[in-house]
Amino acid sequence: MSKKAPFNELVFRPAEAGKPLAAWLYEELRAAILDGRLKASSRLPSTRQLALQHGIARGTVIAAFGPLLEEGYLESRQGSGSYVAANLPDRFFNAPSGPSRRTAATQSEAGLSRWGGKLSATFPPRASKELGLPFEANLPAMDLFPIALWGRLAGRRIRQAGRRLLGEGDSAGYRPLREAVADHLGVARGVKCTADQVVIVSGTQQTLQLVARLVLDPGDRVWMEDPGYIGALAAFKAEAAQVVPVPVDEQGLDVAAGQRLAPRAKLAYITPAHQFPLGVSLSLERRLALLRWAQKAKAWIFEDDYDSEYRFSGKPLPSLQSLDSSQCVIFAGSFNKMLFPTLRLGYVVLPPKLVQPFIHARSMMDRFPPVLDQAVLADFFIEGHFGQHIRRMREAYAERLAALLETAESGPLAGLLDIAYIQAGMQAAAFLPATLPDMKVMTAAAAQGVEVLPLSVFQIGRTDINGLLLGFANATPAAIRKAAARLAKALGRSF
Amino acid sequence: MSKKAPFNELVFRPAEAGKPLAAWLYEELRAAILDGRLKASSRLPSTRQLALQHGIARGTVIAAFGPLLEEGYLESRQGSGSYVAANLPDRFFNAPSGPSRRTAATQSEAGLSRWGGKLSATFPPRASKELGLPFEANLPAMDLFPIALWGRLAGRRIRQAGRRLLGEGDSAGYRPLREAVADHLGVARGVKCTADQVVIVSGTQQTLQLVARLVLDPGDRVWMEDPGYIGALAAFKAEAAQVVPVPVDEQGLDVAAGQRLAPRAKLAYITPAHQFPLGVSLSLERRLALLRWAQKAKAWIFEDDYDSEYRFSGKPLPSLQSLDSSQCVIFAGSFNKMLFPTLRLGYVVLPPKLVQPFIHARSMMDRFPPVLDQAVLADFFIEGHFGQHIRRMREAYAERLAALLETAESGPLAGLLDIAYIQAGMQAAAFLPATLPDMKVMTAAAAQGVEVLPLSVFQIGRTDINGLLLGFANATPAAIRKAAARLAKALGRSF
Repeated sequence: MSKKAPFNELVFRPAEAGKPLAAWLYEELRAAILDGRLKASSRLPSTRQLALQHGIARGTVIAAFGPLLEEGYLESRQGSGSYVAANLPDRFFNAPSGPSRRTAATQSEAGLSRWGGKLSATFPPRASKELGLPFEANLPAMDLFPIALWGRLAGRRIRQAGRRLLGEGDSAGYRPLREAVADHLGVARGVKCTADQVVIVSGTQQTLQLVARLVLDPGDRVWMEDPGYIGALAAFKAEAAQVVPVPVDEQGLDVAAGQRLAPRAKLAYITPAHQFPLGVSLSLERRLALLRWAQKAKAWIFEDDYDSEYRFSGKPLPSLQSLDSSQCVIFAGSFNKMLFPTLRLGYVVLPPKLVQPFIHARSMMDRFPPVLDQAVLADFFIEGHFGQHIRRMREAYAERLAALLETAESGPLAGLLDIAYIQAGMQAAAFLPATLPDMKVMTAAAAQGVEVLPLSVFQIGRTDINGLLLGFANATPAAIRKAAARLAKALGRSF
Repeated sequence: MSKKAPFNELVFRPAEAGKPLAAWLYEELRAAILDGRLKASSRLPSTRQLALQHGIARGTVIAAFGPLLEEGYLESRQGSGSYVAANLPDRFFNAPSGPSRRTAATQSEAGLSRWGGKLSATFPPRASKELGLPFEANLPAMDLFPIALWGRLAGRRIRQAGRRLLGEGDSAGYRPLREAVADHLGVARGVKCTADQVVIVSGTQQTLQLVARLVLDPGDRVWMEDPGYIGALAAFKAEAAQVVPVPVDEQGLDVAAGQRLAPRAKLAYITPAHQFPLGVSLSLERRLALLRWAQKAKAWIFEDDYDSEYRFSGKPLPSLQSLDSSQCVIFAGSFNKMLFPTLRLGYVVLPPKLVQPFIHARSMMDRFPPVLDQAVLADFFIEGHFGQHIRRMREAYAERLAALLETAESGPLAGLLDIAYIQAGMQAAAFLPATLPDMKVMTAAAAQGVEVLPLSVFQIGRTDINGLLLGFANATPAAIRKAAARLAKALGRSF
């Protein structure tokens, strides 16, 4: 299929159907120069000769030579035709001969940094996957999100956007959204802050990584709830911090144990409202003990308030931040959990001392968050839709949780697992007897089309946790009942 | 203004107008417990007594006690009333007495990491500011962006979004957008890649920081164009890399100088299509020399293709990536420069070896980019609007550049500054005589309402650059002429 060119035994690939011949000739000549088949300073046939050799119009050859001359591959010498440029490195790519070599690329031998080389599989990238199998955790009710309203708000906001909204970004976030968040958190979570302390981020993962970099040096100790959130663990390990697992019991993080294990830790990571994954609340006594320790130890506290907006019973405990008069609590939350996961907006309330360093670090990381999205969310707040959505979801989730609890009390799951007392959130921890190891249950459940997260994967130092994390927010009561029957089948069948 | 309560000399702040009295009493009691004015285990007056003392209904006092009991601040002992919880740390906050102490917060003594402490002012966070003064650099034409069309696409896309688009994110980016980018770059920039090598990011700053972390260890050498882009410099310095300034001349980066200065560098940062800030293109000879060096030195090349889509004369030089058969070029671009700055979407084309580590690191950093925005941009591509917009902008920018050049050739700026030959982009470098130091010119121009960036701020090791970076894309020809007259006034007046 290849034509032979009489000069230099040059092999050209045939032109693809429909491709202009000038473009074809340009590419073939350029490739020949780059692989060294056409040597530096060698003389090319005249445009007339080339046209004849390839059976194409001379104008086509001239059209191909133009860009080669302009780009420096060829040089034109008055009166003697065209030459391959003299100053090109000879046989640049050391490619073997034959037409296939042009696509045979070698891999670079350049390497990764130590950090890059150690990126482990503990916190794998998120890939597209089938969504919405029943009991998948960490998902809000996507069937109930008012997407038509959101689309209307977005369309209006974007059509009206002037050059300010198109051009002007603030590394701290869109000011009206920061103000709406400060107001909301004051009322809903007792957070004491001004809008100046609120920074809009893409979600809690970004806050975690930025805080980890800002306050941790290699070897610094960090209290981690055990069991606890893997994304936080990964962020701390990425900074080569020494993670100290601190056990969680029915009152939440065992603060006294933390003080024994690592009295001089630099940071404590905690989910006080609704411990991830066990679901318990940190008791008031421990809240105060934790704050007292942090003040004395000059430590920071990272309060991950990940789904505490959804509380079903009792008045919500105010945030740890609301009790903190020593300004050591970093309070983080995410709209991705409250509205929908692909929104990619969240917030952090920072102690005054950390505000400027955090904004600086975020600017280095990705400059500032998308402004139109923030403006739409600000409208969603200001027009009252946010509060309304949270209230509606609280009701819906309570109903979905009730359906789940019923299946475990008197339905197909009765006697098979033990759902922990749950006051808030989008998922419930369910404990299994030791005879049913949670990793095996996960596999058996998957075979039944049910997705459950084994609690044991969240263990850091301990080995006594055996159970499942059951998401109930993103499935209707009917779907929950159906899935419970399938899960019961998996539990019965495999053991 | 404060009432005296007979027990413990307790001082309550008066209730704010409109605040429910139960909420007021709850907060005041809670504050008194937290500051230690109400001691652990101390007995509270009966609800009847408290109601009488404060002249409020007994039901109001009961309503305030409820959450305090529930949250663990108070304990109820059968038959003997309510007590402050026994296990609360005594006088937790050690606050001085007086009603103002509750708001007097101390700053935490917790500190920053070495990295956090070194965050310098070289790359300050982006704050909201007045936009669109003439000659502001790095801004596309926001007056010409088809915002109504974008709003229409967004509204349609969002209204139709199902649970997949609301819930499903991929750390590598939205697949149809990755495919559209791969197709576009193949045609427009000669980039050789599959969609698998394309990762969607928030912009080039995110790519820079991720690449820096992924491939640089402290002390590793990095070639930086001198003068060069400050954001890249900051990203490399953040990893404690040793930045080696390599001079730029009329052929672009002086590759031979780089080889002399740091033959074993790990990374070279370069803007070959349109050097930032000088505007020159890297010659073909140097492109090939750079690639040959990188292959031999096992170095990576970071090709920042920041505004090369807008080329006014000649056929665009294909990207460096298109010449790279050793897979060492990381090719980065940004839609924030091509469409509008607050969009926060960009792309990187990675050598196969870096794809997985990069996606992993990005997932650790912020999980994945906003999906609806990506879907709207994918529609913008697929329906042909992207190509059309780029073509329209190329014409508009050529017209705006012509207006600028005219002011410098025969208009008010003639003889005052020397605009460098420019083939592409959104801004032009203009050199000043040594008698007009660019920092002073910036100040004088600002007083005239004109924003110019001094070229000298982009110098890393050298000290011979004196000039201005003049953005011309975001101002109409008429605005450019007017601003040129003002700039001429500033140049004439101040020296």
